[in-house]
This record gives sequence, structure tokens and C-alpha cells, in this order.
Amino acid sequence: MSASPPYKQLEQEWQRLHAFNGALSLLRWDAAVMMPRGSADVRGEQLAAIGIEHHQLLTSPKVSRLIDRAQASEGALDDWQKANLRAMRRQRDRAIATPVSLISRLAVATSVAEVRWAEARQRNDFSLFAPHLEEVLHLVRDKAALLGQALGLAPYDALVDEFSPALSASDIDAVFKLLSRRLPTLIRDAIERQAQTPPLPLVGRFAPGRQRQLITEVMKALGFPFDRGRLDESEHPFTEGVPGDIRVTTRLDGADPFTGLLAAVHETGHALYDLGVPAPWRTQPVGRDRGIALEESQSLLFEMLLCRSRAFLTWLKPLLEKHFGVSGPEWEVDNLYRRLTRVERSMIRVDADELTYPLHVMLRYSIERDLMDGRLAVRDLPEAWNQGMADRLEVRPPDDARGCLQDVHWANGSFGYFPSYVIGAAIAAQLFDSLRAQAPDLDEQIARGDFSGLAGWLATHVHGQGARLPLKDLVKAATGKPLTAAAMLRHLETKYVEATP
Amino acid sequence: MSASPPYKQLEQEWQRLHAFNGALSLLRWDAAVMMPRGSADVRGEQLAAIGIEHHQLLTSPKVSRLIDRAQASEGALDDWQKANLRAMRRQRDRAIATPVSLISRLAVATSVAEVRWAEARQRNDFSLFAPHLEEVLHLVRDKAALLGQALGLAPYDALVDEFSPALSASDIDAVFKLLSRRLPTLIRDAIERQAQTPPLPLVGRFAPGRQRQLITEVMKALGFPFDRGRLDESEHPFTEGVPGDIRVTTRLDGADPFTGLLAAVHETGHALYDLGVPAPWRTQPVGRDRGIALEESQSLLFEMLLCRSRAFLTWLKPLLEKHFGVSGPEWEVDNLYRRLTRVERSMIRVDADELTYPLHVMLRYSIERDLMDGRLAVRDLPEAWNQGMADRLEVRPPDDARGCLQDVHWANGSFGYFPSYVIGAAIAAQLFDSLRAQAPDLDEQIARGDFSGLAGWLATHVHGQGARLPLKDLVKAATGKPLTAAAMLRHLETKYVEATP
Repeated sequence: MSASPPYKQLEQEWQRLHAFNGALSLLRWDAAVMMPRGSADVRGEQLAAIGIEHHQLLTSPKVSRLIDRAQASEGALDDWQKANLRAMRRQRDRAIATPVSLISRLAVATSVAEVRWAEARQRNDFSLFAPHLEEVLHLVRDKAALLGQALGLAPYDALVDEFSPALSASDIDAVFKLLSRRLPTLIRDAIERQAQTPPLPLVGRFAPGRQRQLITEVMKALGFPFDRGRLDESEHPFTEGVPGDIRVTTRLDGADPFTGLLAAVHETGHALYDLGVPAPWRTQPVGRDRGIALEESQSLLFEMLLCRSRAFLTWLKPLLEKHFGVSGPEWEVDNLYRRLTRVERSMIRVDADELTYPLHVMLRYSIERDLMDGRLAVRDLPEAWNQGMADRLEVRPPDDARGCLQDVHWANGSFGYFPSYVIGAAIAAQLFDSLRAQAPDLDEQIARGDFSGLAGWLATHVHGQGARLPLKDLVKAATGKPLTAAAMLRHLETKYVEATP
Repeated sequence: MSASPPYKQLEQEWQRLHAFNGALSLLRWDAAVMMPRGSADVRGEQLAAIGIEHHQLLTSPKVSRLIDRAQASEGALDDWQKANLRAMRRQRDRAIATPVSLISRLAVATSVAEVRWAEARQRNDFSLFAPHLEEVLHLVRDKAALLGQALGLAPYDALVDEFSPALSASDIDAVFKLLSRRLPTLIRDAIERQAQTPPLPLVGRFAPGRQRQLITEVMKALGFPFDRGRLDESEHPFTEGVPGDIRVTTRLDGADPFTGLLAAVHETGHALYDLGVPAPWRTQPVGRDRGIALEESQSLLFEMLLCRSRAFLTWLKPLLEKHFGVSGPEWEVDNLYRRLTRVERSMIRVDADELTYPLHVMLRYSIERDLMDGRLAVRDLPEAWNQGMADRLEVRPPDDARGCLQDVHWANGSFGYFPSYVIGAAIAAQLFDSLRAQAPDLDEQIARGDFSGLAGWLATHVHGQGARLPLKDLVKAATGKPLTAAAMLRHLETKYVEATP
């Protein structure tokens, strides 16, 4: 019998869960960066064994008893502890609502579907993927129904809530409605204006070793701790790890030094968020469960608002000269800025610019809702996609590889995930607005490579808040305004129309 | 209630333990090869969390009940299954005999002691390490007493048995007695003879990239599967992983291409043993618990008997030319062989040659037995070491860094481990003898890079046997003779005296 109060015992249980999560994170990092090609089966077994242990601990009668007892004496807890207890209960409730059998079936179905998806994309043949998507969709519907019932949410909201706690479809709809009204004309205007001064191309080969040196120098300046973190390369950039050992990857392109740099800065945004949790909460859910939309707000703030700015490029220019020995008109700040803010109606989401990107996401949102509700059959997905692209972006993919097969999300069962990219962008713009209002000389700071003002504001208003407040409350507390798309639209208008020469 | 028989349920439980072991192995590999310098604390928590889970599963009432029930109907099991059940019981018995509290205290004490040891070695100051060694020694004595009592073994035997099941101090004493009688004169004779034809030095710098290419080519020829394995670099070479994902490291020296090559071949010996377990037993203890002495027999067979032979060097010579563009008399087989079989009385075990190496181990064995029994106080360790080196090897370390502080084993609590290096060498020689008797053209095979005869024999007589037989029974079955130092001494006499020009 332990003499410590139930809440303290819960913190200890979650310390163990945190250690399991850290191990799982490293196993995933290794699988993407280091693991030999043939070892996926073995890794799958390791992930499953620890994942099941994690689930069993979370759903154990002991934990539930402790939660009930801690709840009963909640008055003795401070705000952080109360929020932590809520986050614990939330994890427990979700875990209990999804039986291990369903989790296992989803794990198997999605791991098969991911392989088939990759094959289908490579061969440009949707029919190879369709039956596996059917199977995943079927299981995700079951999961959404069970979760919705347990949590008192509509099924789709229950999925969204998994990725971004307390965000709902009606929040998403409100943001998307504002954007869809204004974006089409904004895109047209931007493309027209930009046509008058097309950027000069960057010619040359940029050695991987030098790119890594440049990226490392930039990440250090932004505050990334290389004594407790790593930078590596992988096919798709990502961030894994825990505050004591955080790992960022990027993807280098020998012909374009900005591909790797922008991806690394994007991931550094995630990493600094992970690192910025107050130390006492690092192992606890109140330090971790902030949700994907807030995560994306940080990576997009770094990539889109910081990195693709004249101020940042002013600081970066001598670094480019130093590392690549480049010079000439194409390396002037104005030209680089034109390149990094180029708007184009294109087919691939991950290559899309800041202005057209939301339309890619809104198409996926509309389609996944129809798939979930049964209004759209899997066999009709390619046509719905292509028609949607034509309607929204005036481009019609010539094949499914560049159409509905381009993203892995649905293959791995991540329905309800896509909207957080755009909600994240809206939050980023709203945060940046407030930050700018409080630091009128922000551009000068950035131009001389002083990121402490930016870092300090984010530390106070976002990073250091962990998951103490629900998403919308955090935005309100940080910016004084409710979460809307207004700041994002204002930012896009200024950047892509008004301020374009 | 599961309907499958108790034994089958046990196999499933051990599949989970195997997955945990695989995850632990990857976490250790990463810590040595990839992890940022500052992340050791976080990694320690992850290792501890999974380690405790592993221990709890092993000591659970459920597993003990299943073992009892499986035991009761043992008649229905085949030989492999019976051996597997024995190995399971052995693991369970050892786990139950060592309470979690002792394991935790040892984990903490050894992790502190390792840090202090590294500091003491660097500063050449034994007094920094002494109190921590006292603490570790104290806990290891407790562990040995508990294990000995539970397993019906003398305390030191209980420690040896952890590393090499069913090996005892009396087995070790018998081997060491034979060696200590003959080695001193053998060493003197070898040094005298070798003095007549000292090897020419290898001059030059050998680029790491080229060294890696050479090593990769050699490892492939020996059968290492790079689609399910990796080669990396670390301060101390090691092998980690599971049969589906095996990872070998080496340490490169820019001035000597043999440092990295020999270490990699040594580790490849371990890796091929790990990989050679019959597939159905890969996740089970009968496939894994072979013990360190047998493990070392495989790595030493590859490094000492295969790699440091004229036949192997004949095959290697054109590869050295190809990868390093070298030529000249110093790269002739005879000169390389002279270099790789050079005997020298030296201070550092890990750099010692095949002939003097056993004396380094015998000193450690004698000292650790005296420490365990209390016949030697920790404060008197440096003097006992230096005197022992003078007596056995006629060299007296000028400081403790090159004396009793050179090995990490005692700091991490591995008492009873050292002897397995020499028992492994004795087994290697005895196995190689039998292999040679059945393949009279072995040298010709090796000289043309055909390692299939060697691999096939080891697969049948060693790798494919897993831990089905106890150590000494396996040696008897493979060679037709009981385990002794006779073959090792014959091998050393031939190689270092009779066949020296």
C-alpha cells in the first residue's frame, strides 16, 4: 500500500507511460531513418508489444480507481494538476472506448493498406488500394462510433478530437467557410501580380554536407539543442522523441537548398514546442497532449511566417554565401523572397504554397466526411477528387498517383487529421499578429538573427502552457481574440497582394 | 480462458518478452551509436521502464502457474520444447531470486559507478572510483548469495552461470590450470622466434569511407545480411539486435585498416551466431540463452582462427589492393600474417594478442574471486593488479589508468564475466580442430573466399543448436571430446612456435 495520495500515484504511472512513449518514438524514428529495409516485421512486433503494454496500463482497474479517487479530492490540486488529471481521464476514456481487438485489427489493416497504397501510387492503379481503403474505412467508422458514444461526440468529431482535443467540425467549418469565400480571388490576384516579376532560378548543385552545415547553423540560431537532439535525413521529414532527446529529420535536394532548409525549420518549430514544456510537466499528459493543430501552428509559424519573410532572408543571405559560395542577382533577398512566396495552382499538397494549400486540405476534408458518412463510395473517390481539384484549383490531375493516391493519411487510418493543417495555419497567423503588436521591431530583430523576442513570446504564451488550456482557450488567452481565420486572411492579403510589387 | 495448452501459452508470453528484448537492444544500440550526448538520463528511464515490465512479466504468478502445468505434462513435448521449458524456468528462477529492489539499487549503483570509473580512468585516480566499486561489490555479493541459495550454487558460480549457463568455477579452474602451466614458456619462445623476422610497418592513411567499403565486402562474403542488418561505428565495437535486425559496430583507425576490419569480423562472428538459430526458436529462450562463452567462441573463431590466418590473408590481399590501392613488400601475405600474429607482453587486455590474452583474463579472474570472498580489499586492488601483471606478464603498469582502471566490467557489476573470454577461445580452438578434420581442404576454400564449408559446419554443430544442449554437452556433441584447453594449447604451439619461420 502506497501512502502517497492517488493523484501523485497517477503521476508516477504516467511517468512509466511517458517512458514507453519515448521508447516507441525512438523505435519509429529508427524505422524511418536507420532500420535495414527487411526488418519491418520485427519492428512491428516490438511496437505492438510495447503499444499493448501501454494500452493495458492505461485501461487497468488500478488506474481507473486512482482517477476516481483523485477526482474525489480534486479541490486540493492546483490548476496544472487539475488539467493534468483531465488529460489523464481523457486518455483513459479513449483507451477504454476502443477495445484492444479493434486496435489490433486497425493496426493490421493499416499496415497492409500502407504497403498497398505505396504500390498503388507507384503503379498508378487505384484499384490495388481500393479494397484496403474500404477495410480501413470500415474499421475507422466502428472506432468513431464507439468513441463518439463514449465521449458524447458526433463520430467525426470524436476522430478530430483525437488529433486536436476539443476541436470540432463546426470550428473547422467556420474557418473553412471564411477561407473558401476569399481564397479563390486572392489566388487569382496573386498569380496575376507575381507574373509581372517572375523570380530568377537558382542554378547549381548544393552538396549535402554543406546543406547540413547551413541547416545546423540555422537550427542552432533558432535554439535547437544539439546536445539533446539530432538532425537526420528521411524520405518524409518528421520530428520524434521526447524533450530530453528530440530528433528532427529533413529531406535534401541537391538542386535546391531551400527544400531541406524549410523542412528542417518546419520541424524545428515542432521540436521547440516539444522542448518548451515546463520541466515538471514533461512526462505528464498536460505537458504533451496539445494536439496537432497547435503543433502545426508552431511549425507553420516557423516555416511560413518566419522563414519565408524578407527579414529572415536578410539574415540568411550571408549564410548562403558562406556555405555555398554563391552570389549574383538570383541570391538577392528580393529574388529569394519572390521564389519562396511563389503562388501556383498545383496538384501536390506537400509542394503547395501557403495560399493554395488550404484548398488542398478543404478538398480532403469534404471527401473524408463524405466517405465516413457513406455519401461517397470508395470506388467513386478518384472522380470526386479530380472534379474537386478542377472546381477548387482549376487543375485536373491526369492520374491518381498525382490525385487521390498522393497522401498516406487515409491508408494509415488518420481520418480527421487533415483539417488541423489549416487550423494550425490560422492559429499561427493569429499568434504572429499578437507577437508583432507587442514587438514592433520584430523584423529588425529577425534580420539581425536575434530570435529571442520570438522565442520568448512563444515560450510564455504557447510552449510554456503545455496542454493546460483547451485549444481555443489558449488562443484566446494568447491573442485576446477567439480563434478565427481573420488574421490568416489579413496576413495572406498583405503578403500576396498588397505588398507584392 | 485460453484453450491452448500451457506450454503453447508460455511460448506466446516469451514472444512478448522477445519483443521487449528487441526494443531494449535497439535502445542500447542507439545509445552507443546515435544518441545525443546529453540524453543518457532519458534513455535510462526508457530502459528501466521496459526492463521492469520484462521482470514483472517473468515473475508473474501467471507465468509460474503455466510453467508448473507445462512441467506436469512435459512428456508430450519434443526435445527442443523440453529444453525451451528448462530455459524458461531458469529465467524465471533467476528473476524471482533477485528482488526488484536489488535490481534497482544495482542499476543505480552501476550507472553511477560507470560514470565515476570513466572519470577516474581519465584522471588516473583510483580513489575517485574506489567507493563506488565498494558499493557495487557489496550489492553483487548480495545478488550472488541470493542467486546461489535459490539455484543451489556457490555464490561465484551463480554469477558465472548468469553469463554462461552450466559453467562453473571448477571448469574454469581446470582450463586455466593447463594454460598457466604452458603459456609463460610459449610466450617466451614465440617472442624469441618472432624477433628474428620483425614485420614491416604499414605506412599510410586509410580513408574511413574505403575502410567501410572493404569491411562491408568482407562481411558480405562471410554471410552478413545487410538487408536485415547494419554496420556502424562506436567507441567500443559490439553486436546488438535480433535475428531480423542485427547491428554490428566497429571502431576505425585511420592509420591501421586492420583495427576496424578485425573488430568487424569479430562482431560478425557474434551476428552470424545470432542469425543462425533455427527460425522457429528465434523468439524463444532455447534460441537465445547460449551464454557468453559460446558467443565468444564464435567471434574468436572468426577473428583469431579465420581472419588471422595465411589462407584468409591470401583472399584478402587483392581486396586490400582494390580498396586502398596499396602494394609493396609490407602488403605481402607473409608480412601481414607476421603483423597479425605478433606477440607482445603489454598492459592493455583489449589490445593483447592471442597468446598473452589469457594471462590478462586469469589475473582478473583471480582478483575478482578475491574481491568477492573478501580476501582482497578494494583499496588494495591497484597493488594486487600491478604485482599480478609483473608476475604473469613481466610488465608493471606505471599508472592505474593502464592498470586496474582499464576495463568497465566491474563498474557495471559484471563479476564472473571475464573467464568466458578464455573459455570461448578454448571452445573455438576445439571446434576449429574438428571442422578441419572433416574438411582437409579448408585452407584452400578460405584462400579462394569460399566460406560455405566453415559456415555449413558451424550452422550444423553450433548455430543451429541454439541453447538446446548445455555448453559442455554441445562441445562434446560437436567435437566428440569433453571441453578442455588441449586444442587451444596445440593451436597456440603450432601457430606461434612450430610454424614460425
